[in-house]
Amino acid sequence: MTVKMDVAALHAFLESEFPQVASDYVVEEVLENRLRMRLRVGPGHLRPGGTISGPSIFALADVAVYLAVLAMIGPKALAVTTNATLDFMRKPAAGCDLIAECELLKLGRVLAVGDVRIHSQGQAAPVARASLTYSIPPGT
Amino acid sequence: MTVKMDVAALHAFLESEFPQVASDYVVEEVLENRLRMRLRVGPGHLRPGGTISGPSIFALADVAVYLAVLAMIGPKALAVTTNATLDFMRKPAAGCDLIAECELLKLGRVLAVGDVRIHSQGQAAPVARASLTYSIPPGT
Amino acid sequence: MTVKMDVAALHAFLESEFPQVASDYVVEEVLENRLRMRLRVGPGHLRPGGTISGPSIFALADVAVYLAVLAMIGPKALAVTTNATLDFMRKPAAGCDLIAECELLKLGRVLAVGDVRIHSQGQAAPVARASLTYSIPPGT
Amino acid sequence: MTVKMDVAALHAFLESEFPQVASDYVVEEVLENRLRMRLRVGPGHLRPGGTISGPSIFALADVAVYLAVLAMIGPKALAVTTNATLDFMRKPAAGCDLIAECELLKLGRVLAVGDVRIHSQGQAAPVARASLTYSIPPGT
Repeated sequence: MTVKMDVAALHAFLESEFPQVASDYVVEEVLENRLRMRLRVGPGHLRPGGTISGPSIFALADVAVYLAVLAMIGPKALAVTTNATLDFMRKPAAGCDLIAECELLKLGRVLAVGDVRIHSQGQAAPVARASLTYSIPPGT
Repeated sequence: MTVKMDVAALHAFLESEFPQVASDYVVEEVLENRLRMRLRVGPGHLRPGGTISGPSIFALADVAVYLAVLAMIGPKALAVTTNATLDFMRKPAAGCDLIAECELLKLGRVLAVGDVRIHSQGQAAPVARASLTYSIPPGT
Repeated sequence: MTVKMDVAALHAFLESEFPQVASDYVVEEVLENRLRMRLRVGPGHLRPGGTISGPSIFALADVAVYLAVLAMIGPKALAVTTNATLDFMRKPAAGCDLIAECELLKLGRVLAVGDVRIHSQGQAAPVARASLTYSIPPGT
Repeated sequence: MTVKMDVAALHAFLESEFPQVASDYVVEEVLENRLRMRLRVGPGHLRPGGTISGPSIFALADVAVYLAVLAMIGPKALAVTTNATLDFMRKPAAGCDLIAECELLKLGRVLAVGDVRIHSQGQAAPVARASLTYSIPPGT
């Protein structure tokens, strides 16, 4: 299966569909069933004490799987998240961006499942692990 | 076990610790191991098409369990989310606030588990279901 | 929506389709989107020390949601579990059966989501909480 | 961190602590924070139609994380599963054993998190993905 949207196409899609958050994210690499992206951590993602908020980590995992699915099936999809599971394992490093590495474990006709590991830039130990299921509407 | 923080104390805590988001939330009721709160849905919570974003729903579930735990153990805690699982089941009704009903199923010495049902105000069918585990640091 | 399979029909289905485990389970009540059933705990469900094994608890939650779905859509379905999340919260009471109370939170055309609370018979505090998603094949 | 229990030590532990199921499992490799094991699929693991039962897959994931934790901390632990999340993605191949590849993403003082990929022997596509949290009792 070939990649239908490359990094530039995914950035254009993000800017068109999610203009309010597109500048927070940088897609770094897209391969078959794999995508790596970065959250540019800014003040709006932080909690008191300097840690990155849970919703910001959730959002990063969610958009990583969404873009990994779109990269494979093209931009017309209206896929929706049906299930998300996250393990928060370590405090992110202060002042570092977060990197999400997504792997699509299943890309079926109806359901897609993506697995995401998130770490602070330059650190090997994972901050969080997530798996998300997307429902793909018929006819897309 | 008695409730250690009532609605007013929880609001004061939110405003003090999470000033950037406190005005989004209204705690409506606190009982032993139960808490009901509302997300005042505003433009910042919406996705194109008017639906409420996944991170906003995650944040609501997360804060509901956090406050339900603090209501029982008091404001000194530094509890952190270790696991979150969400099922997204229906599109929220347009123009409606979201209501989260949280029940603490376990409040142990080390771990607390909360179950959350989220629905659009005035609608019975759930928009989402979530369960979250919080790790409670020793000595709190 | 009316219940299409009552307790007797569900027992007959279990005995026909899952003869090797049917005698472990007793469906106690079926209502619209709700089902209560019991695991007759026997030596095969126990771990050293007398606790009930995790796989036995998983199996109880899984079959409870499966039967709750079939009760609503009828016996022809070939629904399969796509996601299961369990929180194990307390050690089951020794020598007691387990009771599972299942509620279907969603019964869509493609996906069904069930929530299950499991407790030891005669004890209020939950042993485990589970949510499971079933994929319903088209045309059923 | 060095491995405290090798393949032979883990097999001896399984046979001593879980004699009723030990012969179902073969630990194939143990490395730092990694473990690969096999479920010898037999008639007791099958559902009508020849597919492997959900509880058998759950059990394999659960024991893989358990043994991966013990391999690192030694045999004295009384770790218990507190959370398990599974995505079931494909039907296992008929007549094949299942292989579980476990990676410990966190091995903390109180909590351990393991990620497991399960596939049919000789097939690359995953049958299931699981993540499990174990609570490690103090003093071990």
